[in-house]
Amino acid sequence: MTKEPLQLSSPPTDAFTQSTQLQLNSQGQLRHFLSINGLSKELLTEILDTADSFVSVGNKTVKNVPLLRGKTVANLFFEHSTRTRTTFELAAKRLSADVLNINISTSATSKGESLKDMLQNLEAMACDMFVIRHADSGAAHFIAQHVCPDIAVINAGDGSHEHPTQAMLDMLTIRHHKKNFEGLKVAIIGDVLHSRVARSEILALNTLGVEEVRIICPNTLLPHDADSLNVKVFRDLDSGLEDVDVITTLRLQKERMNSAFLPSEQEFYKRYGLKRSVLKLAKPDALIMHPGPMNRGVEIESEVADGAQSVILDQVHFGVAVRMAILSMAMSGQTTTKTL
Amino acid sequence: MTKEPLQLSSPPTDAFTQSTQLQLNSQGQLRHFLSINGLSKELLTEILDTADSFVSVGNKTVKNVPLLRGKTVANLFFEHSTRTRTTFELAAKRLSADVLNINISTSATSKGESLKDMLQNLEAMACDMFVIRHADSGAAHFIAQHVCPDIAVINAGDGSHEHPTQAMLDMLTIRHHKKNFEGLKVAIIGDVLHSRVARSEILALNTLGVEEVRIICPNTLLPHDADSLNVKVFRDLDSGLEDVDVITTLRLQKERMNSAFLPSEQEFYKRYGLKRSVLKLAKPDALIMHPGPMNRGVEIESEVADGAQSVILDQVHFGVAVRMAILSMAMSGQTTTKTL
Amino acid sequence: MTKEPLQLSSPPTDAFTQSTQLQLNSQGQLRHFLSINGLSKELLTEILDTADSFVSVGNKTVKNVPLLRGKTVANLFFEHSTRTRTTFELAAKRLSADVLNINISTSATSKGESLKDMLQNLEAMACDMFVIRHADSGAAHFIAQHVCPDIAVINAGDGSHEHPTQAMLDMLTIRHHKKNFEGLKVAIIGDVLHSRVARSEILALNTLGVEEVRIICPNTLLPHDADSLNVKVFRDLDSGLEDVDVITTLRLQKERMNSAFLPSEQEFYKRYGLKRSVLKLAKPDALIMHPGPMNRGVEIESEVADGAQSVILDQVHFGVAVRMAILSMAMSGQTTTKTL
Repeated sequence: MTKEPLQLSSPPTDAFTQSTQLQLNSQGQLRHFLSINGLSKELLTEILDTADSFVSVGNKTVKNVPLLRGKTVANLFFEHSTRTRTTFELAAKRLSADVLNINISTSATSKGESLKDMLQNLEAMACDMFVIRHADSGAAHFIAQHVCPDIAVINAGDGSHEHPTQAMLDMLTIRHHKKNFEGLKVAIIGDVLHSRVARSEILALNTLGVEEVRIICPNTLLPHDADSLNVKVFRDLDSGLEDVDVITTLRLQKERMNSAFLPSEQEFYKRYGLKRSVLKLAKPDALIMHPGPMNRGVEIESEVADGAQSVILDQVHFGVAVRMAILSMAMSGQTTTKTL
Repeated sequence: MTKEPLQLSSPPTDAFTQSTQLQLNSQGQLRHFLSINGLSKELLTEILDTADSFVSVGNKTVKNVPLLRGKTVANLFFEHSTRTRTTFELAAKRLSADVLNINISTSATSKGESLKDMLQNLEAMACDMFVIRHADSGAAHFIAQHVCPDIAVINAGDGSHEHPTQAMLDMLTIRHHKKNFEGLKVAIIGDVLHSRVARSEILALNTLGVEEVRIICPNTLLPHDADSLNVKVFRDLDSGLEDVDVITTLRLQKERMNSAFLPSEQEFYKRYGLKRSVLKLAKPDALIMHPGPMNRGVEIESEVADGAQSVILDQVHFGVAVRMAILSMAMSGQTTTKTL
Repeated sequence: MTKEPLQLSSPPTDAFTQSTQLQLNSQGQLRHFLSINGLSKELLTEILDTADSFVSVGNKTVKNVPLLRGKTVANLFFEHSTRTRTTFELAAKRLSADVLNINISTSATSKGESLKDMLQNLEAMACDMFVIRHADSGAAHFIAQHVCPDIAVINAGDGSHEHPTQAMLDMLTIRHHKKNFEGLKVAIIGDVLHSRVARSEILALNTLGVEEVRIICPNTLLPHDADSLNVKVFRDLDSGLEDVDVITTLRLQKERMNSAFLPSEQEFYKRYGLKRSVLKLAKPDALIMHPGPMNRGVEIESEVADGAQSVILDQVHFGVAVRMAILSMAMSGQTTTKTL
């Protein structure tokens, strides 16, 4: 255990490169879920298969299963998010876990307690799992490196780094509708630069073997490391949407609008908004996806969001199942680690 | 599913007239609980009988029953209410449901997400029931018209329209103490104009067949449609309380005091406050009721609130049982609808 | 039931002297847990023994036991505390109780409802237990005197009076490491004057029969009734820490720093901060304790807080078990009372 308080705004530069060994136990099973980066196609497929087994749970009269009975899951949300927090809470409750929702801005850290002390206290209370949402990239990795070994850490979104559970629910949605990933062309539209969703999704799509990942965005919203991401970059929808099977349009953060990154909301909608008029460039059965919450009339036209090709609510539905899969697999991987 | 965002401040004018068919399934069973309006004496009696069976649950060593095990109840409170939210939460937990408390002011709608999107997301997460408290009249009806068919909607108070679960717990309290409704004279005192409690209560009392419903209030607080409500209107306590069996005094909203509606808090208490001195005009065993929270010394004298005739805490006690009855009946009505 | 609203800022002067009879039923079993004052060595030992049986619960794969299944525990926190509230919530959930978290600043009392009305409402909802944190000394006693007889009241900290569950988890930590209390010298450092933790701890240590309790603090932070507390008073660490077996250093409330009580934070740390340099005065295996949350660099040096002698996280760990013991014993004592 480190003796320094957590310095989350400057995580160790080797935190991400160590992520594979951090995420898996010695038998190659998931014990933390921090990033898509470093996970194999086999493991991602195991997550999707496990999630599939929970999708039916949501349709049964009694939705709960006792897999995490007697376990305590702490939702540590340093950044506000009703939707992600709610789906993790539902996922944990449907696995029969006890859930603690800890709103960090109102917690003891406001009494001058360090984050490290707060986490050690939750460990001492015999919590079994931390679900972390944090504004700093690398927060979940850093916490996973410093918690005691029998706690599983799940990344529920860290800064502009990754949002791996969102990527996995998107993968489950694509597989559900397209059956497999081979041969698919997938386009991601919008603020790729700041999007943890885009980063996780690009990694997952490439790992699962799609034919082509495209990103469509203005120069100002292009990631600096785009060359290393194994994507094709397009500047406009006309060229980028041609012949694609899946379209994800990203949420435009209000705080980015009218900034140096963007001329105006109206101008963005005109050039990058997903409208019926541009949709015809894609394949006729192309899936429309959005991580939510949507800005209707900014990144997506209402008729497209609610149209026949939209699978946006399927994403939410599969989100609970994917999180049930990840919570139960990580708990099982931890238990295996302990008893080895 | 409508494509327009919810416009709750102007619900369709036919929303309320459709309420009967909206509330019942094809077999006449409750599937939403939105208003007393349109429900039969038989159905109200079934609710009271079911609630009676849960009253004993509150006295048993183990208070919980597994009727809603594996179901998810989402408390959507657009208006703050500790008491109503708490009793619904307790009712759902004692039925073994999982409960989500969603405080709307802090939810994703603050991120610019429309209400419609938020509700569709909760549907997609496989919630089974929405309990709605909203400042706009017609909110629960409108939501019930637009949710997917396997979600039950319970109105926990909508604007100045109805608060039907409050009316039913009042009915259970009256029946418990008076055994039946025939021959009873019931007086409702105070701000009837703005009171959803009064509106639901008048409907319930008339449906269950009391002899006479009286409202006692100044002209400024008389509902515009008083003529059609089947009530006798009185201007003062002296005439209105004579020979009554039950007295309900309404909460005076602080924001209405000292407004155009009322000269002053003191003046209101002098003329309409329920004091020992006026109580002797009613029958000696008249019940004293108040929906809470009370403003002692404004609409009711403390000695009356705490006196031998007061059944105000019985109302709260029966409130949990009535909500257990309504939650379980509506869930059962939904399930029947689905399997037909 | 009293007819006056609660006047918590001026509790009856006989409230504390009645505490023994208030806390125990006619068979001498715990039915409220309000203060260490008045409890016998046998009863404190029974709490520790019961807590020991729950410590193993925290290590089992399934941590929950069904002792409070069907019971409702209401956490009434009039003062904010994430840590204490969280451990009580965990303790209640691991006993399978339903838990209501009621944040009083946002409750109906903001609608003008009196505290008494709020408590009576929770009684009427068939809550079984109130866990009370309040800024006024005597709040829990006063509530215990006025609730209906089948509700158990647990004091989670009242003003500068007592914090008895904190004292009991400290006792469990000491007993775990030192095996018994006889012959121990225990030093308590810091703001003893304002500390409910110190007050409860001094009472518990003396009741359990340690050899010597010392308090080490500046004159301005010495309790006025120090003479009657059965403690030895020291002005500096050099003399006070000599040969002690256990050291508890208290949290320094930010609002007390730089006030008339203290010259400055730096000066306090210099004279009373627990640093490695002074630790060598105590026995080599002296335990280091802190009730948390810590101000590192104010009352304790980080190296001491995280060092080999520190049992600060053990305190948190035992805190859940001690609260499980107290909740289950008080519930059992209430049930026995009812059935006699």
